[in-house]
Amino acid sequence: MSQASGYEAWIISIGNELLIGKVINTNLAWLGRKLTLLGYNVRRGLILSDDIEDIEWGFRTALGSNAKVIVSTGGLGPTFDDKTLEGVAAALDEKLVLNEKSLEEIRKKYERIGLSLNPARIKMARIPESGNPLYNPVGTAPGVYIIKSDKHIFVLPGVPKEMKAIFETQVEKILKEIGPKIFFIEKTFTSIGIPESELALFTNRLVREEPSVYIKSHPKCVESRGPIIEFHVTASSRNRREAEEKVERVVEKLMRYLIEKGAVIEE
Amino acid sequence: MSQASGYEAWIISIGNELLIGKVINTNLAWLGRKLTLLGYNVRRGLILSDDIEDIEWGFRTALGSNAKVIVSTGGLGPTFDDKTLEGVAAALDEKLVLNEKSLEEIRKKYERIGLSLNPARIKMARIPESGNPLYNPVGTAPGVYIIKSDKHIFVLPGVPKEMKAIFETQVEKILKEIGPKIFFIEKTFTSIGIPESELALFTNRLVREEPSVYIKSHPKCVESRGPIIEFHVTASSRNRREAEEKVERVVEKLMRYLIEKGAVIEE
Repeated sequence: MSQASGYEAWIISIGNELLIGKVINTNLAWLGRKLTLLGYNVRRGLILSDDIEDIEWGFRTALGSNAKVIVSTGGLGPTFDDKTLEGVAAALDEKLVLNEKSLEEIRKKYERIGLSLNPARIKMARIPESGNPLYNPVGTAPGVYIIKSDKHIFVLPGVPKEMKAIFETQVEKILKEIGPKIFFIEKTFTSIGIPESELALFTNRLVREEPSVYIKSHPKCVESRGPIIEFHVTASSRNRREAEEKVERVVEKLMRYLIEKGAVIEE
Repeated sequence: MSQASGYEAWIISIGNELLIGKVINTNLAWLGRKLTLLGYNVRRGLILSDDIEDIEWGFRTALGSNAKVIVSTGGLGPTFDDKTLEGVAAALDEKLVLNEKSLEEIRKKYERIGLSLNPARIKMARIPESGNPLYNPVGTAPGVYIIKSDKHIFVLPGVPKEMKAIFETQVEKILKEIGPKIFFIEKTFTSIGIPESELALFTNRLVREEPSVYIKSHPKCVESRGPIIEFHVTASSRNRREAEEKVERVVEKLMRYLIEKGAVIEE
């Protein structure tokens, strides 16, 4: 499926609230989109409980995969159920050590609101030996960046605002440097009036003709004008123009076929 | 973490659209909530691409785990990128076979809208040898129910409306029969004015006092009245009253502490 298999990314989301359905996992979609636009092939997502063994399993599995980049969210806060760094350290066969730089930043943040350090706050500065803290511009728990056997691991908080702030101020730059020099192009349009099962033979042929373009159809619902299908056509290339041309060519073929069959197209 | 570890459930979500961030995974949260309320311990979620090998890996991993129940969504449609049943069959070391009952239902559904069978439509009736079709009351692709070495596997479509309809008409009943006779109780409330890091020592102690109650705190944001934290307190028991009492006891202790510290509580 992939046009850039040397640049696989895994996303790990940690938190019981995701598994029991209390919280919808918007972080994974946000990171998936960012990584995709940076040219990475987001290959897998793992949703893990707050259990240390589960977290260790998740990171060990990712470390044993082809992933070049692993991004996790959640479990970095001060409370007893924030165990991500313990699980990461276990997966890396490392110890947690107090990071003086992180501790100093955490101390300053609490000082500003009139609070002093306590064991729960100090805990957030204990990171795996080979880790480097990522500054959290909008909250207290720092992220952690680890390079291990050619894999880049970014451990981010679960609060979306904090996760996004650390990603945009620090992670994105690193991902650009280590990532593919690739352009990702996509086009989305909607077809009304033709059922998905009517198109399968044609799209199968189209995929064989254009193996480097990814076509995905999402049946939406059936309204009075007939079945609605959303199409996503994507391609990536080191050459922006080439990726654009590939997508345009496939979209044109698809639309022509759909219109011939009697569909209405909405862009 | 679990009060019902004999009843673990895994959720598998299949679809590139989830990994590239085109679609937010609401199915996983919906299923997670349903399974939790039925007394299952939702232990893990896997988000897989539309690649057969990835799907096979996901199901093999789940089959090798303690999960009693595996529920998947996505990849059951008629098009070339709907490969879930091929991946499931590979993980089970089974072949796909044409299920006459499914085929007949699919035929009837298309007949009603004036269409006949074609290879893409017939494909949806090809299910793993040991599978039984689950009737789709609102769409065309049937779900599949498989029992394998004491594990119950439910393979459902990714369109939320279809997934929910199959779950509510058929899957839920089976899950009740094979599941724990257990009641799951939860209470949610919000605390305003105290930072999460101020509570860690107290909640750590509370967790030791009440090991079977699960307490989770979610820092939301800091507004003019101070930091906002949402608390979820949950417990499960074969005895409804017992679960309720446990939750009430912990919520009361938590609220009393928060109020003493100067927090405002919103229920």
